Amino acid sequence: MHEEHLAINRRLAAQLRVDSIRCSTSAGSGHPTSSLSAADLMAVLLTGHLRYNWDQPDSPVNDHLIFSKGHASPLLYSMYRAVGVVDEDELINTYRRLGARLAGHPTPTIPWVDVATGSLGQGLPDAVGIALAGKYLDKLPFHVWVLCGDSETAEGSIWEALDKASYYQLGNLTAIVDINRLGQRGPTELQWDVQRYVARVEAFGARAIVIDGHDLAAIDTALRQARSDTDTPTVILARTIKAKGVTELEDKNGWHGLALPPEMAERAISALGGPTHLVIKTLSPTQGHAVPAIKANPGAAVVLPSYELGEKVATRVAFGAAIAALAARPEVVVLDGEVGNSTHAEEFAKVCPERYFEMFIAEQQLVASAVGFAVRGYVPFASTFAVFFSRAFDFIRMAGISQVNIRLVGSHAGVEIGEDGPSQMALEDLAALRAVYGSVILYPADATCAAKLTLTMADTEGIVYLRTTRGAYPVIYPAAEAFPVGGSKLHRAGPEDQVALIGAGVTLHECLSAAEELAKLGIMARVIDAYSVKPIDRAALIEACNVTGSRLVVVEDHYPEGGLGSAVLEALADAPVPALRIAHLAVRGLPTSGKPSELLDAAGISSRHIVTAARELAGRGHSDD
Amino acid sequence: MHEEHLAINRRLAAQLRVDSIRCSTSAGSGHPTSSLSAADLMAVLLTGHLRYNWDQPDSPVNDHLIFSKGHASPLLYSMYRAVGVVDEDELINTYRRLGARLAGHPTPTIPWVDVATGSLGQGLPDAVGIALAGKYLDKLPFHVWVLCGDSETAEGSIWEALDKASYYQLGNLTAIVDINRLGQRGPTELQWDVQRYVARVEAFGARAIVIDGHDLAAIDTALRQARSDTDTPTVILARTIKAKGVTELEDKNGWHGLALPPEMAERAISALGGPTHLVIKTLSPTQGHAVPAIKANPGAAVVLPSYELGEKVATRVAFGAAIAALAARPEVVVLDGEVGNSTHAEEFAKVCPERYFEMFIAEQQLVASAVGFAVRGYVPFASTFAVFFSRAFDFIRMAGISQVNIRLVGSHAGVEIGEDGPSQMALEDLAALRAVYGSVILYPADATCAAKLTLTMADTEGIVYLRTTRGAYPVIYPAAEAFPVGGSKLHRAGPEDQVALIGAGVTLHECLSAAEELAKLGIMARVIDAYSVKPIDRAALIEACNVTGSRLVVVEDHYPEGGLGSAVLEALADAPVPALRIAHLAVRGLPTSGKPSELLDAAGISSRHIVTAARELAGRGHSDD
Repeated sequence: MHEEHLAINRRLAAQLRVDSIRCSTSAGSGHPTSSLSAADLMAVLLTGHLRYNWDQPDSPVNDHLIFSKGHASPLLYSMYRAVGVVDEDELINTYRRLGARLAGHPTPTIPWVDVATGSLGQGLPDAVGIALAGKYLDKLPFHVWVLCGDSETAEGSIWEALDKASYYQLGNLTAIVDINRLGQRGPTELQWDVQRYVARVEAFGARAIVIDGHDLAAIDTALRQARSDTDTPTVILARTIKAKGVTELEDKNGWHGLALPPEMAERAISALGGPTHLVIKTLSPTQGHAVPAIKANPGAAVVLPSYELGEKVATRVAFGAAIAALAARPEVVVLDGEVGNSTHAEEFAKVCPERYFEMFIAEQQLVASAVGFAVRGYVPFASTFAVFFSRAFDFIRMAGISQVNIRLVGSHAGVEIGEDGPSQMALEDLAALRAVYGSVILYPADATCAAKLTLTMADTEGIVYLRTTRGAYPVIYPAAEAFPVGGSKLHRAGPEDQVALIGAGVTLHECLSAAEELAKLGIMARVIDAYSVKPIDRAALIEACNVTGSRLVVVEDHYPEGGLGSAVLEALADAPVPALRIAHLAVRGLPTSGKPSELLDAAGISSRHIVTAARELAGRGHSDD
Repeated sequence: MHEEHLAINRRLAAQLRVDSIRCSTSAGSGHPTSSLSAADLMAVLLTGHLRYNWDQPDSPVNDHLIFSKGHASPLLYSMYRAVGVVDEDELINTYRRLGARLAGHPTPTIPWVDVATGSLGQGLPDAVGIALAGKYLDKLPFHVWVLCGDSETAEGSIWEALDKASYYQLGNLTAIVDINRLGQRGPTELQWDVQRYVARVEAFGARAIVIDGHDLAAIDTALRQARSDTDTPTVILARTIKAKGVTELEDKNGWHGLALPPEMAERAISALGGPTHLVIKTLSPTQGHAVPAIKANPGAAVVLPSYELGEKVATRVAFGAAIAALAARPEVVVLDGEVGNSTHAEEFAKVCPERYFEMFIAEQQLVASAVGFAVRGYVPFASTFAVFFSRAFDFIRMAGISQVNIRLVGSHAGVEIGEDGPSQMALEDLAALRAVYGSVILYPADATCAAKLTLTMADTEGIVYLRTTRGAYPVIYPAAEAFPVGGSKLHRAGPEDQVALIGAGVTLHECLSAAEELAKLGIMARVIDAYSVKPIDRAALIEACNVTGSRLVVVEDHYPEGGLGSAVLEALADAPVPALRIAHLAVRGLPTSGKPSELLDAAGISSRHIVTAARELAGRGHSDD
């Protein structure tokens, strides 16, 4: 590195340190010491390696920079000031304030932020998804840079990410690990034992480069090497000092999440040379390949499968056929968690192997990859058994905060799966995923609905979840039926209905059988197919209440808390309807193995239980009214 | 290995294979091929290494055997037959049947099973907890054996587990990886590239031993070596052949989760020598140290901290003081996710470092360790930020199926945390954790309640979750107050109340302020402190409905789905109360950073919003009635 370049980097690093201190002290909170350790690394990245057009954050040729250690936001935002996209006033006076985009941890409310970070161990997995898109679909020379903390390497997700990065030969990905030895409450596990990091990184198939993270020339060389490799991801293991540059705090425990008090900040800023306003012109994005190899075509014709009424087809099978049809859209990508033959996602692979990515049994990386593809503008569908999305719940939660559009398809939901037993039964997925910010929850009862909803998902924003069923049940909707998000389907409805049976997925079939049985007994029951669990069709529920005197039987293959029953109740909480008389049939005990029909019955959610509950409600009605 | 011993092992391995085929073919489902690959490994373990008194599964000196690859249950159950605790009829005719203990994947309904498995990558982490207990607390020479699949090494949790196993020098732990090269839908990532497994295992600090998993003598030597080490965990990397012993299926893709059809089964059984009934006498548990070094004393006096009314104390601080007091009980163990200074769990470490285990930033292992300690009879408290239990949701779900008793303490819940922003805000934890089988959800509003509930948790069964708050709020309960699980506290109640305000944790304080304000406006409002979110105090809610005409304002620092609001609604769904007029105040937008009070207000869950909602309900009441 030339002396001139060195000097600029030295000045920039000082400015990044000063600004990190200033903004956090002004806010009275934040993580300046975790910012100071990485200031030299980021200075050199910014002056000589990151290729980015700050005026066009959506440009497809920009590099990506992700702070996996999101708490180093003072540093990230100070970089934004250094490149001229955030001014001093915004940095110093809005950081961490109500409504400000410069939040405590980065979120994509900021145009140059791809994904929300702050839950450690997620930025690198997300970056793997972005790098996959860059290498295999976009075929663009952008590079993905990730700043990681050393503490977060304790998260298994980091190793899922490196494993997939090497499996997919992501030479366009570089993780820079800021090994500052100190976590929040004390030393990290490996402290400065950098060779143990090297062994782990290399064992997982990445190239390790060890440097002194405060040696500007060494950083420069390492970053150049990192970009030069085309088939191996690089991990730069940078030995650093926490709070580097503030002598009285350097390598000192107990200062993790604390802003410097004003007097100390003043001393430190002064020792660093005081506030400056160096403006850096970063390198332009690599020229020559300005357009992604794949051009989205959301208008492409998709020929969905169609089914005969009465034919028995599993909704997971219909999903498989529909997702294969969606291969007609060049932006659709499918990710599998090593169960593609069960979820039927593999039908996509058969027609479009180039946009099908196997994530093996690593559900956190499965979801993170989807997030990465979404960042690059693709329409990712990630699928596994419904129950195993629980493994990635923190990633799904963070995807909600990132406000990316991802589609999750979970098969084998509920006790209906049968013999495999409770470990494989999703019985809490509706509760967990309904509570994710911006989620949409769909649960088709038949193949027609499943196919249609698969297409709808591609055009729906947010965290869109489709719950499919293992077994085959009769097709009940004709091919022309439409299934808008937020809608429902009404069966056997009449103005004299005494009770409404509300089901979704497999329980809808139980409700239909029960209604038939009830009719024989002289009890009129309408059936509502709540295929859109969130948002739920409130108007249909209110109408059902008004017709039946709020006599509802809600039936779900899920534990009683937070699922379809709660969705119905939440919708009716302030509705102008008669006093509720709801029988809520759900899975209340711990299921065993068994045949699906036996288990539905043992759980109390089969047709005969619905009949009993409905008779009781209707009977109570007769005597009450 | 002597020829005689070799012959017995050969016969046993054949029997285990035959029985694995028989039971799964009889059931018509299951994973025989994944059982066959590990039959030799388990035969040698059973005949010469596992020290177990089958008549006393609760004996503290027994070894532990965990099938992390729970789908190999045919093999496990065949082992039970071989040692004489399960008879042929049960094995062949009940496997995977309704209500049978021999479920598709093992659960502790079976006396010799410690933890439910079937969600891959969890058995080994659980075993780390058991081994921690054995080495550091019990100080007993039992060994923990874990049979892992090769596919599950793609789960990050496996590496979290090995990392902690080596960090804590768990020489009493051996993982046996059945590297049969084939997953469910095709080859695994690393297939038979055993040296890459070696590199990873060694990089994570464990000893790797590579063997041919069908060479009985080699297995014997490896298992002996494994047990001989006292400070290093061992990973036996056994190269095996899927479906070994059934020539027509060996190493053949497409047979993962399928039972052999009857004719094929007959051929295979015949080739293996037909059904036999060899009964194995396993080694007795190691003699000499028959009693754990720690003797539980649940009756030990615990002197809880007490607080002055009106004093401002954060509930997380009260938890810290209370958990430190609980150190008086020798069975209490505390596990930290590298945030002990924030959750205040570190108060326990100050008085009882020997029962405090740092798990660093690895929440899956944090929860798994708690499960392991619970298996050994301890009373574990695992704590981190409330939001980061989402990282371990699948582990918590499985702990529910295991029906172990663990305590989870999550601090920094909701928008109340302030400046750190949404990534750190638990806003979906109540929904997710309420839906876990056998969970109990507690959410104290003041320090007295937090301290009392901490003690209560120690004596409460199930997955018990305590949600604590970051900020300091006034103490509202005297030290003598009792807080039973399932209870609530009533404030300002009278027979003329027009509305009930229902809060928990931080929102209870907002409700109390609102009630005061409403009183000035001439509106009588009772306030219910729903500190027990699950089970919730249904009687108190019904009474409130009957008094107020079901005019309730439910206020929670949580997204609207599945939390306190849903808990209230679920309790009232079939209650004989007037038609509900519920205003549900919850966090409906995506929060930013800000001051806690600003964020509560911006989210619409502060006192003034409660006042508005209550006035509207009360007003509506006047015009309606």
